[in-house]
Amino acid sequence: MSTAKFVPPPPTEVSSAGGSLQVRVLRAGPEGPVEREDQVAVEAPLEFQLFHPSLGLEPASFGATMRTPGDDEHLAAGLLYGEGIVQRAEDFDAIETSTRRPNVVHVRLRASVALDVQAPARRFSAGSSCGVCGTTGLDAAIARAAATRVAGRARTALSVLLQLPDRMRERQSKFGDTGGIHAAALFDPSGRLLCVAEDVGRHNAFDKLVGENLLAGRLPLTDHIVVLSGRASFELVQKAIRAGVGLVAAIGAPSSLAVSLAESSGLTLAGFLRERRCNVYANPERLEYTR
Amino acid sequence: MSTAKFVPPPPTEVSSAGGSLQVRVLRAGPEGPVEREDQVAVEAPLEFQLFHPSLGLEPASFGATMRTPGDDEHLAAGLLYGEGIVQRAEDFDAIETSTRRPNVVHVRLRASVALDVQAPARRFSAGSSCGVCGTTGLDAAIARAAATRVAGRARTALSVLLQLPDRMRERQSKFGDTGGIHAAALFDPSGRLLCVAEDVGRHNAFDKLVGENLLAGRLPLTDHIVVLSGRASFELVQKAIRAGVGLVAAIGAPSSLAVSLAESSGLTLAGFLRERRCNVYANPERLEYTR
Repeated sequence: MSTAKFVPPPPTEVSSAGGSLQVRVLRAGPEGPVEREDQVAVEAPLEFQLFHPSLGLEPASFGATMRTPGDDEHLAAGLLYGEGIVQRAEDFDAIETSTRRPNVVHVRLRASVALDVQAPARRFSAGSSCGVCGTTGLDAAIARAAATRVAGRARTALSVLLQLPDRMRERQSKFGDTGGIHAAALFDPSGRLLCVAEDVGRHNAFDKLVGENLLAGRLPLTDHIVVLSGRASFELVQKAIRAGVGLVAAIGAPSSLAVSLAESSGLTLAGFLRERRCNVYANPERLEYTR
Repeated sequence: MSTAKFVPPPPTEVSSAGGSLQVRVLRAGPEGPVEREDQVAVEAPLEFQLFHPSLGLEPASFGATMRTPGDDEHLAAGLLYGEGIVQRAEDFDAIETSTRRPNVVHVRLRASVALDVQAPARRFSAGSSCGVCGTTGLDAAIARAAATRVAGRARTALSVLLQLPDRMRERQSKFGDTGGIHAAALFDPSGRLLCVAEDVGRHNAFDKLVGENLLAGRLPLTDHIVVLSGRASFELVQKAIRAGVGLVAAIGAPSSLAVSLAESSGLTLAGFLRERRCNVYANPERLEYTR
């Protein structure tokens, strides 16, 4: 029996092909850790700027959302329709992506559109970018999270990590019945289950988990492991960093921003957690591979 | 060969057991449509009201989110921590669910918490409840969607509906590679694929689909079918109703609110769409079962 440390993979490649990004991962399974290429979905902020005759030449920010780049004009049109701001195609003079600023879309509305001047101030913060409205806010939130270092160097055996989804499911109350409930579970480095939170929303489940531990005086969650029933997005990794969690393992896929944020903050991020294997996307040194 | 119309199931049962709700569905597969019980995850709004010495006796609304009831105090604590409003358990005087109003949680903050009075006005609208911040707003949005009737009586054969996920996947660009991209696809009643939109966010994918069709002058999407790669939540059904879609079929599970909203608006809602079967949760009369 030999114990080998993972070798950290090279930093994320930045070659983007449409909505997906090529990254290098450690595929960790029974045959040992193998370095390989993987594709992750791109997640990036998009800000909506409204132009309307009543506003003069200055645009009004209509908030921002995390999205996968591509069809940004469709996204802007659909959002404004869903919000009730526009009713038909003729309500738009133009929808253009900004040539000067990436991740900004300009929406020019006709004078005939009855724009409630309060509406832009109300801002919708689409997606779950709670309180980080506007690209400026989103960019600041990304930078803040990336600059935070998670402490804790406790190591967990890969064989233990792979058992955690089953331990989480055993304690879940509703997941099996409905197929529609997300869960977030907290474990210590030895794999002992500490608590589970459930919700239709992935972000709510994580917030419930953090809230329970905050009220119990257990924050920061240094040397702890969080297992997620779904995918790992920017916001969930951001919440994990804020709570001091060292290792996040998701049963689903991570987004591009989740991977790069985990890399820069020192958080260990695993995805596609299965019974016999998982992918390690960032900082694999908290995992111990025993052959 | 005989063609039988589905018999609409009785209205949703309201007996809730924790975070799940028992509903009656038509299980439609090769053996014919069978009425049975099913469990769906509960989705309901929760409003956060902040009390702080600087605010006097009046609470300030800190927005609202859709969530699964249960551990609401943990959710409030975790959200306020994630937002940076509180730093430790001692920042709370009390967190209580309102005894007078369901779905409201009261958070009493200590005077030592430096509450930015602008923060509550900024409101975060957690989840993707774009622009419908605050329970009042969420309740109004639910009532508005429930009062809207979708038109269109086109019928689609179940055997055609079951092929649509495969047709959608064939046209998707990134889903297979990353495992982390959601898709929404539009079909006519004969099962012809009209367009597909993709995004890391389920709501963004739907907005892109609606935006493309809005700009092409194709709204309302009467007699059309939308297939969703993930789950069907309140907000997606709300967006479908607004766009006039008659039939929504999700590969994942629906939430309780998605089911009741579909029922009251006349929208046909199917879930767990598989190669050989699906569940029909509301208004099954747009489906045709051919033995």
